[in-house]
Amino acid sequence: MAKIERVSPLAPASFPDIPAIRGVTFSTASAGIKYEGRNDVMLAILDPGTEIVGVFTSSSTRSFAVIDCEKKIHLNDSSLGAAIVVNSGNANAFTGSKGKISVEAIISAVSEVLNIPKSRVFSSSTGVIGEELPHNLIIDVINKMVANKTEHGFHEAAKSIMTTDTYPKGSVRKVATEKGEITIAGIAKGSGMIAPNMATMLVYLFTDASVKKETLQSYISEVNEKTFNSISVDGDTSTSDTVLMAATGKSGINIEKNDKGFSQGLTYLMTDLAHQVVKDGEGASKFVEINILNAKSNFDAKTHAKSIANSSLVKTAIAGQDPNWGRIIMAIGKSGALAEREKIKIFFGDILVAENGSVAPCYSEEIGAEYMKNTTIKISVDLGLGVANTTFWTCDLTNDYISINADYRS
Amino acid sequence: MAKIERVSPLAPASFPDIPAIRGVTFSTASAGIKYEGRNDVMLAILDPGTEIVGVFTSSSTRSFAVIDCEKKIHLNDSSLGAAIVVNSGNANAFTGSKGKISVEAIISAVSEVLNIPKSRVFSSSTGVIGEELPHNLIIDVINKMVANKTEHGFHEAAKSIMTTDTYPKGSVRKVATEKGEITIAGIAKGSGMIAPNMATMLVYLFTDASVKKETLQSYISEVNEKTFNSISVDGDTSTSDTVLMAATGKSGINIEKNDKGFSQGLTYLMTDLAHQVVKDGEGASKFVEINILNAKSNFDAKTHAKSIANSSLVKTAIAGQDPNWGRIIMAIGKSGALAEREKIKIFFGDILVAENGSVAPCYSEEIGAEYMKNTTIKISVDLGLGVANTTFWTCDLTNDYISINADYRS
Repeated sequence: MAKIERVSPLAPASFPDIPAIRGVTFSTASAGIKYEGRNDVMLAILDPGTEIVGVFTSSSTRSFAVIDCEKKIHLNDSSLGAAIVVNSGNANAFTGSKGKISVEAIISAVSEVLNIPKSRVFSSSTGVIGEELPHNLIIDVINKMVANKTEHGFHEAAKSIMTTDTYPKGSVRKVATEKGEITIAGIAKGSGMIAPNMATMLVYLFTDASVKKETLQSYISEVNEKTFNSISVDGDTSTSDTVLMAATGKSGINIEKNDKGFSQGLTYLMTDLAHQVVKDGEGASKFVEINILNAKSNFDAKTHAKSIANSSLVKTAIAGQDPNWGRIIMAIGKSGALAEREKIKIFFGDILVAENGSVAPCYSEEIGAEYMKNTTIKISVDLGLGVANTTFWTCDLTNDYISINADYRS
Repeated sequence: MAKIERVSPLAPASFPDIPAIRGVTFSTASAGIKYEGRNDVMLAILDPGTEIVGVFTSSSTRSFAVIDCEKKIHLNDSSLGAAIVVNSGNANAFTGSKGKISVEAIISAVSEVLNIPKSRVFSSSTGVIGEELPHNLIIDVINKMVANKTEHGFHEAAKSIMTTDTYPKGSVRKVATEKGEITIAGIAKGSGMIAPNMATMLVYLFTDASVKKETLQSYISEVNEKTFNSISVDGDTSTSDTVLMAATGKSGINIEKNDKGFSQGLTYLMTDLAHQVVKDGEGASKFVEINILNAKSNFDAKTHAKSIANSSLVKTAIAGQDPNWGRIIMAIGKSGALAEREKIKIFFGDILVAENGSVAPCYSEEIGAEYMKNTTIKISVDLGLGVANTTFWTCDLTNDYISINADYRS
């Protein structure tokens, strides 16, 4: 079980320069849960007045930390301080009653040190499933973490929550409003077991805007559907997927419902983080965008997109730079959603590949093979049946995916 | 695009010794569609009196040959002779109006040479999708094939329909009845794009029993569900999946509805062929049996089984001999079918791995790792919710799967 040392060839050049978000401080520490010589616990401390919302995995075997967060989202009182505590190296999932005890012990410790109610402490764990979490190792570092907190902690926080990730993921967006500028920033982790359902991976978003809880929840649910719920690495869904968003209000700028600027900023941020997750897909060598156009319904559009994105045959063809469009036809055919053979049009980028139930007259294997050499591959399927469109992102399936997952337990 | 030269390590020692089935003759030929130096066309000629039934892929992009077979199953008049003609190397799928012309040209040629109606000629094509079938190459060899027909052709027929298959697949079963013995035999091909939906791959079954068409159809539909519809290699479903069964009646022995011996014989045969397909799964190094026990419904049982069987993370763990049962929990959780974390029991063979929402007290990583060294891996999941059980078969996901599918277009 050797660890694979590589950085994804699709990784961004560097971690973005994320300024402090007023009302948020971070701290990281090495608790020694699993990894040697690196930080594996992150603490985000949130000032009183912060609204916290989230979306979570719909897995029926989700971890107790997820169940606990789901419950607290509805309870929490923003007049009080809050905290998010996350460890990597152990998912504390399917650990029975001990899992619950671990979550409660960590939350109690954070609650006590920060003097905030337990209902305002949110926790996540990521890593291997089914192993007992040595929670005392985390509790032992809480005091030190609180003492060392800093406003400039995004990069270190992003690093501490990594498991099989090959690079830390962060993003920032400034949104100009009539009343001044607000900032939205976030970090994410995830590179395998990615096929969202409700939410995906671990994602923590922060803004200094002032947003009512219900409003913030509807923004995040809506944007999540077209970002983290529109990506797939391997078709597998984690037991711990969590997206939390905290709005501290410290900018003094209120964001109401249907604010186009805020919605666009959040969409940019979450799309950027979702792409970073896909680009760190285990073994990924190519980034793939799938556009489904003119489907009968949104549900059909997403069903076709997922069928293509999760097809091992499509993904291996892309890895092999093989313009094997017959496998796309196969994936559409098997999806169960509406398609009519004669109406389907397939494009690689802007290249028309197939139409009228057959290869396009202008298409040649050479043109397709040349296109497949790109690092970003765009596949578009026009179904010609309705007006529903969707975009979905995935990566290719390479030998490295097998090596990472057959040899290494994260 | 180098061809991978390997024979699956899970291949049977040899092709079975299949006796002639009265009323069936075979012929094979090299039409030179794609492969060099091997036969790529098979013709099965069936005497008057033969009933023919079938099950087919439900893909919305299925090939014209499949659509044509589906239609004819309902039309065909058993008082007349019949034929099945199959080519490998080209699937003639998504080839537009030219695909239809090719099917009709081949069927006309066979119909004319054998002097049987077109409605009694069934055709299949397997291989790459989207390329025009050079049907004249097939038509050119029909006369020679009819001249060379033989009763002892199962082995050669099985070889001629192979694409990425690494060995020919055949099986035979004799069934004793009160009135004497009947024989059921069959051949199959398939090793990638296997995730059945209605039917799967190309499978041709023959018996000398006399069975009414409706009765034969209900036998095959029922047995298909628990055999070819209960296997998966890569979660992908072909555009050409076909199971045809021909009953010549030449034994003079009638088989009525609910004949336990016939049903058992057919189940044995179809299970054997289905296992042979899985064992030739592209890159397979292990054969995996998944038992779902005590699910709330049959649908739930199969949904959980498929979710485990099609999980890339489960399949790569098995390839790596890693007893990573957390990934099984993940696959159950994401399936969407009913499961209650605290009631789930997981077994590797007879070894209890997890129960009560946690690892089993008697289980150790060493025991699991030792079990994973087996070539046949049995995973059982007891959901404790109802009385529905199902068994599903798959193989592991190895580097060879990637190499075969990224580098080689079958």
